[in-house]
Amino acid sequence: MLTGVHVVLAGGDARQLEVIQKLTELDATVSIAGFDRLDTPFPGVSKADWTPELLKTADALLLPAVGTEDDGTIAAIFTDREMKLSDAYLEELPDRSKVYAGMAKPFLRKLCEKHRIGLVELFERDDVAIYNSIPTAEGALMMAIQNTDITIHGSSCIVLGLGRTGLTMARTLQGVGAKVKAGVRREETFARAFEMGFEPFHVSDLARQAEGCDLIFNTIPNMIITAQVISRLPLHSVIIDLASKPGGTDFRFAEKRGVKALLAPGLPGIVAPKTAGRIIANGLIRMILEDSRLRGEQP
Amino acid sequence: MLTGVHVVLAGGDARQLEVIQKLTELDATVSIAGFDRLDTPFPGVSKADWTPELLKTADALLLPAVGTEDDGTIAAIFTDREMKLSDAYLEELPDRSKVYAGMAKPFLRKLCEKHRIGLVELFERDDVAIYNSIPTAEGALMMAIQNTDITIHGSSCIVLGLGRTGLTMARTLQGVGAKVKAGVRREETFARAFEMGFEPFHVSDLARQAEGCDLIFNTIPNMIITAQVISRLPLHSVIIDLASKPGGTDFRFAEKRGVKALLAPGLPGIVAPKTAGRIIANGLIRMILEDSRLRGEQP
Repeated sequence: MLTGVHVVLAGGDARQLEVIQKLTELDATVSIAGFDRLDTPFPGVSKADWTPELLKTADALLLPAVGTEDDGTIAAIFTDREMKLSDAYLEELPDRSKVYAGMAKPFLRKLCEKHRIGLVELFERDDVAIYNSIPTAEGALMMAIQNTDITIHGSSCIVLGLGRTGLTMARTLQGVGAKVKAGVRREETFARAFEMGFEPFHVSDLARQAEGCDLIFNTIPNMIITAQVISRLPLHSVIIDLASKPGGTDFRFAEKRGVKALLAPGLPGIVAPKTAGRIIANGLIRMILEDSRLRGEQP
Repeated sequence: MLTGVHVVLAGGDARQLEVIQKLTELDATVSIAGFDRLDTPFPGVSKADWTPELLKTADALLLPAVGTEDDGTIAAIFTDREMKLSDAYLEELPDRSKVYAGMAKPFLRKLCEKHRIGLVELFERDDVAIYNSIPTAEGALMMAIQNTDITIHGSSCIVLGLGRTGLTMARTLQGVGAKVKAGVRREETFARAFEMGFEPFHVSDLARQAEGCDLIFNTIPNMIITAQVISRLPLHSVIIDLASKPGGTDFRFAEKRGVKALLAPGLPGIVAPKTAGRIIANGLIRMILEDSRLRGEQP
């Protein structure tokens, strides 16, 4: 239970509704700012204005999945008012409290460092990233179905990187009957890909593997789908880049050559906001409980 | 090879382009009517006007997937002209020739009977129906991802009917990690569902099984998702009805109760026209070859 723990939610989208519900179920004290256009009643939750004073008693400040923009703006779809994070707010946060966000841009990182407030990037945690890979893979599968005129079943797919997201992507494609090749870098990943029935190859061989490929799903956050690779791809093929912005694709060359290339960040919040919200809520709750235990408090 | 076989294609959509290509690869003589707005050049294919004379030497007349409307209209997206089938056309068809369509409405059936011309409904063939179930299941999966705010992975799905489409649907859902219950009628299907790792139940028990279900996929072409069933479904659940029109769902009651219910006919042509076209082409070619053999002709 989170009895006596005060969590402030600032802004966000439909995902935060799941977080609010989970937190209240666990008896946390919940304040929400940036939800004035929200009609769903949440018993026991106080709607508040976004002022520094709100943070005076906060044990945790939860920002949206993307944290803040680099000017401090907090994305908030349930309000028309502008919300910003600044020194004035961080000054009010008690020392023991932490700021939680899906990820953090340099602005947010520097602000928390300056005020010596702990910052937790939930999507960086392995468990959260693996849970999040499920809606990501489903969203990418949906995009693949939408953007091809063939079935994914029987198609030749390449998944680049078999990490937290790549493995889920490869398994999902295999599950619907695609032929899946996996581009990997390490020998142990090569072995695991082989064991799981994928056709592994070393990423240095990508240009050759690209021939005859219908779909490439990239999870590697470096320039990897280069002009050289794209020039070997069939013209009907589709690139779906799941790596964080700016992705790992030479989008300019893809467009020039007429190969469809799509950068697809933030799929969980788009295709499965409820599941994505639960993932954030569960991750957040695990972390708050861990932190209380570390401080020797009654959990 | 189909050397010397004259196939006339009348109308249709992008799927017919695959058929044209396959037929020419096999050296058939191909005439196409209703393709005047088509820019893709097909070497060796003659574009023709839709006149009865065109059919004088036809061994096969291929109509679109849905055959004709009940006033004889032939759907044709690559022309602005109206195309109709009538007595005048059938009179010109040689006795040995056949009319092929995905399916046939009463008008087309009666017309062919009257003129003693063989009519082949390709989608009725088990092999074609099974191949076609692949794009159908992918389209339904896409609709499920689009119309829910949860992931299909981990969701509770019911598939009604484990026939040609139902089995593919259940396997596809299982492939992406859904919990799949299968509503069946026969003991041998119950046993097969059990063997495949689905949770089988008898359709008479559907109302009870509906509780806690996130998605229902129906393939049974009778009223089966009744008001009684819908009243037990969670409000967030989604019904995707894959049975031929008018489906097997009480859509009126679903709307009244606020449960999302979608009738989804013709998915293959929408989500995978190229694959769907290949399926029609392969089925058509197998049938033409079988017919030539039956007539003792050189195939």
